[in-house]
Amino acid sequence: MEIIDITAPFSPEMLSWPGQEPPSHEFLAHQRQGDPNTVSWWQTGGHAGTHVDAPLHFIPNGAGIEALDLRRSIGPCRVLDLSHVEGHVGRDDLEAAEIAGDQRLLLKTRNSGDDLMRRGEFEEGYVAVSREAAEYLIEAGVETLGVDYLSVEPFEDAEFGEGEFRTHHALLKAGVTLLEGLVLTEVEPGEYFLACLPLKLVGSDGSPARAVLIRGLNI
Amino acid sequence: MEIIDITAPFSPEMLSWPGQEPPSHEFLAHQRQGDPNTVSWWQTGGHAGTHVDAPLHFIPNGAGIEALDLRRSIGPCRVLDLSHVEGHVGRDDLEAAEIAGDQRLLLKTRNSGDDLMRRGEFEEGYVAVSREAAEYLIEAGVETLGVDYLSVEPFEDAEFGEGEFRTHHALLKAGVTLLEGLVLTEVEPGEYFLACLPLKLVGSDGSPARAVLIRGLNI
Repeated sequence: MEIIDITAPFSPEMLSWPGQEPPSHEFLAHQRQGDPNTVSWWQTGGHAGTHVDAPLHFIPNGAGIEALDLRRSIGPCRVLDLSHVEGHVGRDDLEAAEIAGDQRLLLKTRNSGDDLMRRGEFEEGYVAVSREAAEYLIEAGVETLGVDYLSVEPFEDAEFGEGEFRTHHALLKAGVTLLEGLVLTEVEPGEYFLACLPLKLVGSDGSPARAVLIRGLNI
Repeated sequence: MEIIDITAPFSPEMLSWPGQEPPSHEFLAHQRQGDPNTVSWWQTGGHAGTHVDAPLHFIPNGAGIEALDLRRSIGPCRVLDLSHVEGHVGRDDLEAAEIAGDQRLLLKTRNSGDDLMRRGEFEEGYVAVSREAAEYLIEAGVETLGVDYLSVEPFEDAEFGEGEFRTHHALLKAGVTLLEGLVLTEVEPGEYFLACLPLKLVGSDGSPARAVLIRGLNI
């Protein structure tokens, strides 16, 4: 059994969405100041780093992340090589890849080749999923979609307070589970067993998650 | 494949260690106030709810939770029935259970029968692991130990700022990974596949985690 961690290290210095407060970390107690043990205190947004979106993120009265069906984030999955895609992922790119039957699909794009998730600075030119590609994913029956940057949304449709977020709306309304901020740089395209586990945050629109791909596991 | 969630729901109202600040949850944006989407902000200690301890929790300059070898928290595991134990788990209780060879061991005690993890109020009389039992676990080669209340430590040895934390010191110095706050009430003792994934919090003494037991998976 081989475990591949596809989670971005989580720290105040990590990549954040423009205008979003990064996480903070302090110590409530520390042995170096004479306390009996060391205890951290963290603050974070629900969509920091590697994370899972809940329907509530875009759907008023939608389900919170605590209600996620864990079969969405645990089970066989395919890592699809889309590193040749220049703009955003289009319907044609997915049609060519024969994704029918892939319940859990992770898209490995140029973002991974450029290692964008592990750079501290936000890059507006990331590869995302077009609205048309989102509609094709829904038609094809994909239930879980993972991407290798902070958002499935093209940046020009996601600017906070201005964008229409058409890709998010389409996918979340159709009940697709979104895994964002995956680190796929070292991952060979192919078949794996996925475990992408968000915290069980009650009433939250999303949660940071730990995500791994496993080889050598069979159902 | 069957997935059993053994994670406590995470919210400001959940069970907390006495004197420790509970988590807080607010919204940075919300669709009900006209924002384009809903975005949560969470604050939490590293040992809130279902969580994993890193060596740094008790060992100065010990490893942080980001350095956890994920083979510790992913793989075959045994849920051991110790519901008959009246006081804390002793060496005798473990000798009788023949635990040699169990790399990952979760202890199901009276805490689960009383559903202590899902009560809001802290209960000082929880079942924990005695120092002698901890030493036996180390001798037996257990690498990952899970318990069904907030701490492996007997309460009388864990009062913050006064206790000696002998069980934690013994286990963490020996390199045993500690999973605390598991909800085992509905879990039948036996063999499972465990995935208990903390966040990848850099430099943190612990992290909240999502923990599941899976049936029907083979290596």
